[in-house]
Amino acid sequence: MQVNGQAYRAIWLGGDGRTVEIIDQTRLPHEFACARLGNLMDACAAIRDMQVRGAPLIGATAAFGMALAMVENPSNESLETAYKKLFKTRPTAVNLRWALNDLKSKLLPLQPDERVAAAYLRATQLADQDVEICSSIGDHGKELIKEIWKRRGKDKPVNILTHCNAGWLATVDWGTALAPIYKAHEADIPIHVWVDETRPRNQGSSLTAWELGQHGVAHTVIVDNVGGHLMQHSKVDLCITGTDCTAVSGDVCNKIGTYLKALAAFDNNVPFYVALPGPTIDWTAEDGIKDIPIEQRNTTEVTQIAGRAPSGEITTVLLTPETSNAANYAFDVTPARLITGFITERGISKASKEGLTALYPECA
Amino acid sequence: MQVNGQAYRAIWLGGDGRTVEIIDQTRLPHEFACARLGNLMDACAAIRDMQVRGAPLIGATAAFGMALAMVENPSNESLETAYKKLFKTRPTAVNLRWALNDLKSKLLPLQPDERVAAAYLRATQLADQDVEICSSIGDHGKELIKEIWKRRGKDKPVNILTHCNAGWLATVDWGTALAPIYKAHEADIPIHVWVDETRPRNQGSSLTAWELGQHGVAHTVIVDNVGGHLMQHSKVDLCITGTDCTAVSGDVCNKIGTYLKALAAFDNNVPFYVALPGPTIDWTAEDGIKDIPIEQRNTTEVTQIAGRAPSGEITTVLLTPETSNAANYAFDVTPARLITGFITERGISKASKEGLTALYPECA
Repeated sequence: MQVNGQAYRAIWLGGDGRTVEIIDQTRLPHEFACARLGNLMDACAAIRDMQVRGAPLIGATAAFGMALAMVENPSNESLETAYKKLFKTRPTAVNLRWALNDLKSKLLPLQPDERVAAAYLRATQLADQDVEICSSIGDHGKELIKEIWKRRGKDKPVNILTHCNAGWLATVDWGTALAPIYKAHEADIPIHVWVDETRPRNQGSSLTAWELGQHGVAHTVIVDNVGGHLMQHSKVDLCITGTDCTAVSGDVCNKIGTYLKALAAFDNNVPFYVALPGPTIDWTAEDGIKDIPIEQRNTTEVTQIAGRAPSGEITTVLLTPETSNAANYAFDVTPARLITGFITERGISKASKEGLTALYPECA
Repeated sequence: MQVNGQAYRAIWLGGDGRTVEIIDQTRLPHEFACARLGNLMDACAAIRDMQVRGAPLIGATAAFGMALAMVENPSNESLETAYKKLFKTRPTAVNLRWALNDLKSKLLPLQPDERVAAAYLRATQLADQDVEICSSIGDHGKELIKEIWKRRGKDKPVNILTHCNAGWLATVDWGTALAPIYKAHEADIPIHVWVDETRPRNQGSSLTAWELGQHGVAHTVIVDNVGGHLMQHSKVDLCITGTDCTAVSGDVCNKIGTYLKALAAFDNNVPFYVALPGPTIDWTAEDGIKDIPIEQRNTTEVTQIAGRAPSGEITTVLLTPETSNAANYAFDVTPARLITGFITERGISKASKEGLTALYPECA
């Protein structure tokens, strides 16, 4: 999508065909900076420190991380070590495991001297495949938005609420939850997005607001507490969120707070859709609440926050009393019963085992 | 309650019997500072700029503001002007109107030269009356907590979630939602409080966490997105919030985001109580969602946040892209159907017209 009028992806292969470039998302929205991943450790750090985040982008970065590891040392031991190190960077993202398993299964049967080329080829394929998936999600989701627009009267913009960042910065391009919004925007359907701030890391107010603004989509930042009030007063036509991991039952594990928005949508008859790339489905998880482990992150993400000080410098400030404890649960699980449907690359489905199995019969 | 081991109220009459002293809540939790209100303008500014906040404390401050105005000029015109200026400081708080009407009705029939003494007497009475109300709410709420404690097994602390600050800093003393917690704590019932950060002004992580810490009550700060997840996993035994304005139907207007927590509590069978001082009931509002106007505050409260920088200075940092719009709805309305009951100074009631009328027959 567009940054300062120029097309970008969230990850791409450097001019040398070896190093990998990313947008350093920890600097947004105040500074647009790219970063170079030169080796496996860089790739691990980029995922762990959330320079890249979002399930699909984590998967793509992990795939390129395997390629970088093969450049350093293409042995079996190196392959296993790289797999383990990358796997440990984030516990929840199913795409991470999926991408790593894919790379490992492709590389292990090869001779070590064939692995570098094969790893870059496969990582590039996975990145391109992610772009295709997201583009298709956008096409299917656009139809939902178009229906609402026609039904409501074409003079009014369609108000969409989203939580966290499931935009192109969370993927390689297009995004998942925001792909339908970009596609609708490009089809001249008037859109206004309510952007949940998304504490504690503020991916909404920093990343979603930034990328929508760069692409010219009208939006308003709100704190996470506001969505229920807006839905009570008919100010939201549609909710779309992403998902970090989806159980085969249709339960969705996504950024903490998604469950609260789904409850409000259900209470106010607002359609609540989850943009779901097929690779994000965990076919082994039956019950989202019981089976999906919830990552607890550093509590300083709650007690401190970074922003731009009047001096222009990015400054981290303390928000809480020094002696207060904090807890930082990163995700929650939204039960399938609250979800109107999934927007997948293969079309719209019910949030249920039947719905998912019908779209992905080969996985069931 | 206790600050650095010393007993404080949130507002008190200065040693000169004329000026009024408050805790400047905009400096907490990083700095404990008191402020002097010397005249009507100081009182208006203290309410408007939220040096004092919380419906009962706003009412008490408004009453003292009328007294300060009478010192400046005890004429009828001055009385009317003071009433209007104070009334305009915050649109939602029903206590503000209630306190102002009370003072005006007491002062107008008097001769101007009798008004100063009468105003101070009445303001002091209202402040003391608020302390009594909150203490009684605490006594009734403590019984609820004790029941849960006995039922769950006495070795485990009772986990209570609260939103915003309805502690003693929101009142003259004791608090509303926190009064039962303080009373239970003083009765040696083990308590742990989940403190919602409460964006955008972070009254939870700054004020509630601070006052619980000062008084020695165990607590953990969480972002507003977390409560649903905690309730799904049985980590919350009871929710207690305050209310800024309660419709006679039992609908509760409180800090934005209260509605989302009530939805989560309802979905997980967690009791959700609202601590309700009688004067907070608006007997003219039948339907909370339709009849209670929702204050929209400055959007800089969303786009910027203040905290303590590493230098030790309180610094305000920008969180959002410079070009992004924001919206700042300060309250939402929780429908009575989601509320287990009210904890009032007269006992526990159902959240309904019948429940309220039974407790306050003289108002119905």
